[in-house]
Amino acid sequence: MAHLNRVLAQRLMGAQGIDALVLFSPEAFVHATGGAPGVATMWRQEGAVAVLVPADPDMPETVVVSDLFAAALRRGSHIGDIRESPIWVEAMTLTALDPDGDLASVFGDVWDGRQRPPGNIRPETFDPAVCYRHLRDALAEKGMASGRIGVEMSAVSANGYPALADALAPAALVDGTGICRRLRAVKSPAEIALLRRAVSVAETGIVAVRDAIGPGVSRGDLAGAWAAAVASAGSGAPMTGHWEYISIGTDPWGGEAVAATGDLVKVDVGCLMQGYTSDSGRTFVVGPPRRVQTELHDALMAGFEAGAALLHPGVALSEVHRATQAAIRGRGLTGYCRGHFGHSLGTGPGTEEWPFISAGAGTSLEAGMVMAFECPIYVNGIGGMIIEDQFEITEGGPVSMNSLPRELVAC
Amino acid sequence: MAHLNRVLAQRLMGAQGIDALVLFSPEAFVHATGGAPGVATMWRQEGAVAVLVPADPDMPETVVVSDLFAAALRRGSHIGDIRESPIWVEAMTLTALDPDGDLASVFGDVWDGRQRPPGNIRPETFDPAVCYRHLRDALAEKGMASGRIGVEMSAVSANGYPALADALAPAALVDGTGICRRLRAVKSPAEIALLRRAVSVAETGIVAVRDAIGPGVSRGDLAGAWAAAVASAGSGAPMTGHWEYISIGTDPWGGEAVAATGDLVKVDVGCLMQGYTSDSGRTFVVGPPRRVQTELHDALMAGFEAGAALLHPGVALSEVHRATQAAIRGRGLTGYCRGHFGHSLGTGPGTEEWPFISAGAGTSLEAGMVMAFECPIYVNGIGGMIIEDQFEITEGGPVSMNSLPRELVAC
Repeated sequence: MAHLNRVLAQRLMGAQGIDALVLFSPEAFVHATGGAPGVATMWRQEGAVAVLVPADPDMPETVVVSDLFAAALRRGSHIGDIRESPIWVEAMTLTALDPDGDLASVFGDVWDGRQRPPGNIRPETFDPAVCYRHLRDALAEKGMASGRIGVEMSAVSANGYPALADALAPAALVDGTGICRRLRAVKSPAEIALLRRAVSVAETGIVAVRDAIGPGVSRGDLAGAWAAAVASAGSGAPMTGHWEYISIGTDPWGGEAVAATGDLVKVDVGCLMQGYTSDSGRTFVVGPPRRVQTELHDALMAGFEAGAALLHPGVALSEVHRATQAAIRGRGLTGYCRGHFGHSLGTGPGTEEWPFISAGAGTSLEAGMVMAFECPIYVNGIGGMIIEDQFEITEGGPVSMNSLPRELVAC
Repeated sequence: MAHLNRVLAQRLMGAQGIDALVLFSPEAFVHATGGAPGVATMWRQEGAVAVLVPADPDMPETVVVSDLFAAALRRGSHIGDIRESPIWVEAMTLTALDPDGDLASVFGDVWDGRQRPPGNIRPETFDPAVCYRHLRDALAEKGMASGRIGVEMSAVSANGYPALADALAPAALVDGTGICRRLRAVKSPAEIALLRRAVSVAETGIVAVRDAIGPGVSRGDLAGAWAAAVASAGSGAPMTGHWEYISIGTDPWGGEAVAATGDLVKVDVGCLMQGYTSDSGRTFVVGPPRRVQTELHDALMAGFEAGAALLHPGVALSEVHRATQAAIRGRGLTGYCRGHFGHSLGTGPGTEEWPFISAGAGTSLEAGMVMAFECPIYVNGIGGMIIEDQFEITEGGPVSMNSLPRELVAC
C-alpha cells in the first residue's frame, strides 16, 4: 500500500511549475510505493532505486527497483510500471527440480537464456546509469523529456549529480526536496496504524524497564529488560527494530551506571514497525524524589501541557515552540533554550524527521501529521529527564498514542 | 584513538595536488578522530560535523563537532583543535548543587552568562553555516584559504553543496571521495581488534542458531536464539548492535517460514563493536542433505577455496573475483554470475564497504585490510546458501577471523 497523496503532490508541484518528481531516498521509495527498497539502498547513494511521480494524478508512476526486489514489489505495490536494475546478488528461480539430480540437469534451464541473457554480467553493487536510462525513457514516454523535474536533491550526492543531470538532459532539474518532505509529513491511515502499534509495543518495554528499576540495577540490565519486552510484545507485529536511550544517575551521558537510591532514570525509546519508528519518553526516580527533581519535572510538565494544548491543525509550529519554552522558563528555568520540542516520524535514517517544532519553523500543523512532542532536559549533576508522547493531529485536536502516566514515577 | 594514517593521507593527497581533506560523513569522523560523531549526524546531512586533515602530517587536524559531544571528544581524541557547533539539545553542567534547593537557586549560575551567552538560541537541528565558518577560519590559519581542498563529496548533497562552496571560497574544492574511502580501507590495529571481537561474538550466535535448528522451529525462533546469544556474549564488549539475514526452506526470501526435514537454513549475520560490523555466513540443513544441496554447497566451497587462496597483499581484487567465479562455474553452475564476492567492513550505513571483490575492481589487496569474503547463492526452489569468512590481509597471507567449520552441517 502506498502512502503518497497524489492530489497533494499535484498541488505542491503545480505551485512550483513542476511536471514530475523524481524520488531517490529509501524512505521516499517506501512512501511512494508501499514496498521495500531493497539491499542496494544500504549505502544511501543515488540511483539504486527511483520513483517518478507525475504532477497529473491520472498519469501513472514509474518505479525503478533492483531485479532482486521486483517480484515482491509487483505483488505489493499499486504501481504497475516497474522497471528493473540488476544488482550484484546472484538469484534465480527453479520451477521444477529433482532434489536428487545433479547440478547440470537441475540448473540447465536457468542458463539457457530465459533467465540469463548471453554475456550476462552483474554490476559490482548497482549501476546508477541503468536507473537513469529508465527514468529518461519514462520521461520521454510521458512527454516530459524537456520538462521541469523536481528531484529529491537531498538524496543525491554532489559528486553523483552531474551524471544524473547529463542522463536526463534536456529536462530541467530543480530541487524538489521540500515537496518530498512535505508529502511524507502527512501520514496515511496505514502509516498512522504502524506508528500507533509501534508506540504500543514501546510502552510495554517502558513498563518492563519501570518494573526492573531499583538500587543496584545497571543500565545494561534496564536495556536488557527493554529489549526482551519489546521483542516479545513485537513478535506478532511487523517489528523491524528498536532503540533506546536509557540513562541512570546524575550524569545524563554517564554510560554504564548502576542505580542508587535517589537516582533519576530517563527512558527515551522507540520501536520500528515496517521501518516506521516510534519515539516516547518517561522519567523515573529510585525512591522518593528530591525537591530539585520534582521541580524540574514540574517545569517540563508545564511546558508539555502548554505545548500539547496547541497541537491543532493550523497552529504554527513556531507558536508551539514559543509557548512550550515560555512555560518551562516560567517555572524558574529562566535561560532554558531548546532548538526543537519534537518532530515528525517515519522510515528515515534518524529517529526524527521534518517538520520540527522549532522557533523558526515556517510551517503549521495539519490533520494527518504524527508528531513526537517532547520536553527534555539534561543536567550533568542531576541527570536526564524527559516527557515525550506521540500525537496524531486530527481535525478534533491532538490524540496521544501513549497511555502511560507522564508524571515522575518513584520506583 | 584515531585510525587515519596521516602518512598514507599525505601520499594520496600529494598525488592529486591536494592541500587538505575535509571529511563530513559520520564514518569518516570516527576514522579520523576516534570519537563519536553524535546525534546531529543521524540524518547523514553535510555540516553537522567535519574534520580538516592537512596533507602535511606535521600540521594538526581541526575538528568541528556538536557542543554536546565536544567534552567527550576532548577526552577521547588525539586531536587538540576541536571547535564547537551548537545543536538543538538543552544540556548543562552544575558543579555544585543542593538537591533540596529550589530551581532558581540551583540554576542561578547557569543563566548568568558563563554557560549561556546573552540572547542564546539554539538551532532547529544544527547549522551547517557554523561548521563552514569554522572550516574557513581553520583553512585561513593554516595558510590554505586559496588552497586546493579535497572534499568528501559523497557525503555532501547536491542541494547542500553551493553553500559549502560559497563559504570556503576562494578555496578550490575537488572531489576527495576516493582518497577518503581508500584511507578507511586499511585498518588500524584497534579497528582490526574490534572486527575480530565482533566476529567472535557473532560466531557464538551462529552456534546458538545451529543448536536450535530442527523440524518445527520457525525463522523467528532462530532469530530470537541469535539475538539472545549475541546479547549475552556481547554484554562485556562494546557491542552497539547486531543484524541477521536468516532464512529457512526453499524460498530464500520466504519470510517467516517453519523448518521441516530437508530444509536449508542460511545464516548471514553480524555484530557491531563501537559501530564496526562483522559479516559471516554459514549454511545448515535439517537432517541429511539431498544431492542437489550437497553439490551446490560443494560448488560454493570450490569457489571459496579458490578465492581465499588469493587473498594476499598485491593481488588484484578482480583476479580474486575471476578465480572464485570460475571455480563455481567449473562445478556445473555454468552461468553463475555475481557482482562481488566480498567487501571491506567499517562503521558506514550499510554492512558492506569499498573496496569490493568484483570483476571491475581497479585496486589490489593490501596488508591491513579486513575483507569479508563470501560465496552465496539464492535459488527459489532450493533455498539460500552462503559461506562467508572475514579475513585480515597480512604480509604472510590471509588470516580468517572465523573458527566455525565451513561445511554444510546437518542438524
